Amino acid sequence: MTVPGLPMAVPARDLPSRVRIHEVGARDGLQNEKKTVPTEVKAEFIRRLADAGLTTIEATSFVHPEWVPQLADAERLFPMVGDLPVALPVLVPNERGLDRALALGARRVAVFASATESFAKANLNRTVDEALAMFDPVVSRAKAADVHVRGYLSMCFGDPWEGAVPVPQVVKVCRALLDMGCDELSLGDTIGVATPGHVVALLAALDEADVPPSVLGVHFHDTYGQALANTLTALRQGVTTVDASAGGLGGCPYAKSATGNLATEDLVWMLRGLGIDTGIDLGRLVATSAWMATHLGRPSPSRTVRALSHEDTEEQ
Amino acid sequence: MTVPGLPMAVPARDLPSRVRIHEVGARDGLQNEKKTVPTEVKAEFIRRLADAGLTTIEATSFVHPEWVPQLADAERLFPMVGDLPVALPVLVPNERGLDRALALGARRVAVFASATESFAKANLNRTVDEALAMFDPVVSRAKAADVHVRGYLSMCFGDPWEGAVPVPQVVKVCRALLDMGCDELSLGDTIGVATPGHVVALLAALDEADVPPSVLGVHFHDTYGQALANTLTALRQGVTTVDASAGGLGGCPYAKSATGNLATEDLVWMLRGLGIDTGIDLGRLVATSAWMATHLGRPSPSRTVRALSHEDTEEQ
Repeated sequence: MTVPGLPMAVPARDLPSRVRIHEVGARDGLQNEKKTVPTEVKAEFIRRLADAGLTTIEATSFVHPEWVPQLADAERLFPMVGDLPVALPVLVPNERGLDRALALGARRVAVFASATESFAKANLNRTVDEALAMFDPVVSRAKAADVHVRGYLSMCFGDPWEGAVPVPQVVKVCRALLDMGCDELSLGDTIGVATPGHVVALLAALDEADVPPSVLGVHFHDTYGQALANTLTALRQGVTTVDASAGGLGGCPYAKSATGNLATEDLVWMLRGLGIDTGIDLGRLVATSAWMATHLGRPSPSRTVRALSHEDTEEQ
Repeated sequence: MTVPGLPMAVPARDLPSRVRIHEVGARDGLQNEKKTVPTEVKAEFIRRLADAGLTTIEATSFVHPEWVPQLADAERLFPMVGDLPVALPVLVPNERGLDRALALGARRVAVFASATESFAKANLNRTVDEALAMFDPVVSRAKAADVHVRGYLSMCFGDPWEGAVPVPQVVKVCRALLDMGCDELSLGDTIGVATPGHVVALLAALDEADVPPSVLGVHFHDTYGQALANTLTALRQGVTTVDASAGGLGGCPYAKSATGNLATEDLVWMLRGLGIDTGIDLGRLVATSAWMATHLGRPSPSRTVRALSHEDTEEQ
């Protein structure tokens, strides 16, 4: 239901005037989809996201095709969208991935570390320190090529094997990634268990360790419905970069409409209500996510997409 | 997925140490369900909610059976749960409804007003002032019988016909309800369009008009995914009563898993993470909502219920 004038824009104190949305739907959102999405559809998805006003759109991942079969078409996809007037970061796990990305002219790359040993082992088959050692030449070579480097850090709040993750442990890996040369970090709540007090505690500890909000993005998953409340909390602490996924894509593909990342639309609704400029056309964004949902064969888990697109009204 | 020790409890500054949850699933959650839920199932639902630790459970509504057919069994239901050691408020629209509730020994009633003329007309077929005049004898007679009275106020932020609702208009009706003798008010974001700045603005204006947070509850709908962020904002402003619906029941029954009220489980997850005591057993609550979802024939829209119950893992 679209009602003109809603949400009403009422700025709140202690919030930034601008927020940059780092759109991860095309990469983080799609990577766990079992059904292969055609490269043309991915390219069209990225084009539509750019058309809706998103300015940073993570495009794909140059990991080994066997790791993430869904993104095995990176070489073909990237050139199809490379001329869009937006930033198109890509994931690179190692030097080989960096070579592939640089060969295609990528200007922004991202490495992905873990705050916990268990997930480092599960995701990278390495210890945390071994993974950092693997990223070190990637980051230095990227920087030498004047390429912007983002460092993702997974499991910053909780870990399915280890439970709550101690704040100092996260701070330590963040510092290492920055010292290595990363330009920005993205704090991932990979299993969605964070709550606002924990967010404040982590951001405060990072700030004390000279990791200020200006180099941070936050990446909340909505597994327990906490993503937007946590994001609001991070904005209050001075963070201005927020990761979000169009339509809430991502998460576990085995659970119907299981929630994954914070939905970009729900974030945009809040920011619009707060009078915070994003430059995004919410109607176009919703239409894009509804279109993608038809390709994936299930409704978007985003509340805002459902409310504004009526995509599932006849399923009852 | 249940992981011991999660969410980690990290208190945040400027939040209350206790929060009272006003559970509305059995009334607000069910009232729009088309398929009649058997009275025995409703009674069992309320019993299980009490067993999970909820202490205020809105039980039913003494409106004319033709208005809300789903709750036409109020006379039969209320005595089935009346001996539970919890507060069991019931909705009463007029003196006739109050008579029915008092005859069954109800100790808490609620009237429901509108902040907008359009919704007063649609819901009560009266102007705002005519509706208040109708409630006046209900409230005074309830107070004379030493019965606690809650005043619901719908459309406090946006209205589907009128758009954004001016803050002074809401303040005026709140004042009128309190002057009439209501013990507490519940501010309803009936169409779910509120955002945090608007919440702060309304609560500040109410405080200035001598309507302090201590007499207020907040009632957010999750239509655009904003309910928990808005609730967090209200808690920061000193509100300690929050309306929520087990499993996120409520909303439009024509859209599959359309989101209605803030899900109690998602709220409890956040409060637990914030170290705020609610006395609620989250596992039992999730099991109750999963059980109710099977009766309604569709998965709960609550993120936390989905994450912890795996109720829909095989639907893919």
